[in-house]
Amino acid sequence: MIVHFAGLGSMGLGMACTLARAGHTVHGTDLSPGQVDELRAAGGHALTAASDHADALVCVVLNADQTRSVLFGDDGLARRLRPGGVILSCATVTPAFAIEMEAQAAKAEHLYLDAPISGGAAKAANGKLSIMASGTAAAFDAAQPLLDAMAETVHKLGERAGPGSAMKAVNQLLAGTHIAAMAEALAFAASQNLDLARTVEVISASAGTSWMFENRAPHVIEADYAPRSSIDIWPKDLGIVQGIAEDAGLLLPVATAALAQFRAASAAGLGKEDDAALTKHIAGQSGIALPEKK
Amino acid sequence: MIVHFAGLGSMGLGMACTLARAGHTVHGTDLSPGQVDELRAAGGHALTAASDHADALVCVVLNADQTRSVLFGDDGLARRLRPGGVILSCATVTPAFAIEMEAQAAKAEHLYLDAPISGGAAKAANGKLSIMASGTAAAFDAAQPLLDAMAETVHKLGERAGPGSAMKAVNQLLAGTHIAAMAEALAFAASQNLDLARTVEVISASAGTSWMFENRAPHVIEADYAPRSSIDIWPKDLGIVQGIAEDAGLLLPVATAALAQFRAASAAGLGKEDDAALTKHIAGQSGIALPEKK
Repeated sequence: MIVHFAGLGSMGLGMACTLARAGHTVHGTDLSPGQVDELRAAGGHALTAASDHADALVCVVLNADQTRSVLFGDDGLARRLRPGGVILSCATVTPAFAIEMEAQAAKAEHLYLDAPISGGAAKAANGKLSIMASGTAAAFDAAQPLLDAMAETVHKLGERAGPGSAMKAVNQLLAGTHIAAMAEALAFAASQNLDLARTVEVISASAGTSWMFENRAPHVIEADYAPRSSIDIWPKDLGIVQGIAEDAGLLLPVATAALAQFRAASAAGLGKEDDAALTKHIAGQSGIALPEKK
Repeated sequence: MIVHFAGLGSMGLGMACTLARAGHTVHGTDLSPGQVDELRAAGGHALTAASDHADALVCVVLNADQTRSVLFGDDGLARRLRPGGVILSCATVTPAFAIEMEAQAAKAEHLYLDAPISGGAAKAANGKLSIMASGTAAAFDAAQPLLDAMAETVHKLGERAGPGSAMKAVNQLLAGTHIAAMAEALAFAASQNLDLARTVEVISASAGTSWMFENRAPHVIEADYAPRSSIDIWPKDLGIVQGIAEDAGLLLPVATAALAQFRAASAAGLGKEDDAALTKHIAGQSGIALPEKK
């Protein structure tokens, strides 16, 4: 298939390269030319005015505003998708926004898959993502060769846009809150002079464990805050959760407290660090020492 | 060994029966005579004035006040422990309280193991508990036959009382917060008209999962709020976490928000229900429907 690919960040680049390796003709674009070079090194192409019209458009940008602009803005890529072609929209957005995009795509006779992704950069690079997807049967059919290449698991969640984004929001509510809980727990353990490596070992085998605890706590033990996923993801994603909840008249005080912690850590200058650095923020406020880089 | 066993609740009864089955002579006591009858049916005995002095005293009561009273109150059982005998104290308490109990035990030449338990009633009944233990080598040696019978895993966390209780508090901080996050996530999913059974399936395979999510969310799907572990555990245990954190000058806004939710659910009359019923409390405030009992 001829694929136009917008957004070659830590997730998008891996996905685009995976598609190129699977034999698709991938034309990619990104604000950073270096990322496009990396796609070309993996057998892809730069998306230019001369690129052929596409069978599919994959959009892996930061948020709803960027998604709207990339798809339907003045230089929107949707007009370079052939009739009957499929849009895979992967940013974390509200269900209402996904429904709006699907409607706009339908006007131009384009299929739309509400397809947020989960799994991190390593899985993106290996075609092992989880995709929480919803859309028409025709959209799933059209996207199938791409889903096969990029995903280990495709959760089919409904026959229109919306449920895919809703499920992603549920996941982010939990994942973000669990990171904040991990940060509080490790700062608490350090305040009690517990050995943190031993703490991670014991908790990972106990009822207090979570996927995020087991994945992120080792970053704190190693004092390695190089961003695999940054603090700044969370004011955005938990903000989306918060907005959806408000529209539903639902109070989420625990997730809201987690959101406030990520915002405060970002304001304190930790935004570009790994999200496990929230632990530093919480411990630092109380003068509690954490492991240092060896 | 001759074991005196105080507190035959959902955890204690299983542990006492496990000890009796392992060949120990167990004399048990509980405020409820029915619980003592159950121990007798499993080969144990009622603890009476005529019971022989003990080699070990296991205390599985609700909190610090009960622990102090059972061990060292007017009718305290410590005085019926032989010199050199070992106290296993299993309630969730502060590290400072555990240190105080160890010191008081030492005055009477008793050994003391700070030995909070984790795993739930089913594992208690099968000798498969996790025990987060700290104490002197002599205390561990004296308790070993009992630990062998009751526990699948004994985490040895230090050579004096304190670290065992501190690690249990870390676990409860996470476990309680994760239950509250689960409750918010399921209410949120329901507000978005996601199928909850499908939600649990997808999240359990995603980065948003936790041990508590996988264990408790099915109770919500089945609308089964018979208490395996009740709402009322959490104001107590997260209150202990909160107290320890305050003494350390540490702010835990996420765990504090979870504590407030459990307190509110208890005040709303849900205290005796399974802790998964926090979901009902959160959803109910916003008029969001959850699955009903079939």
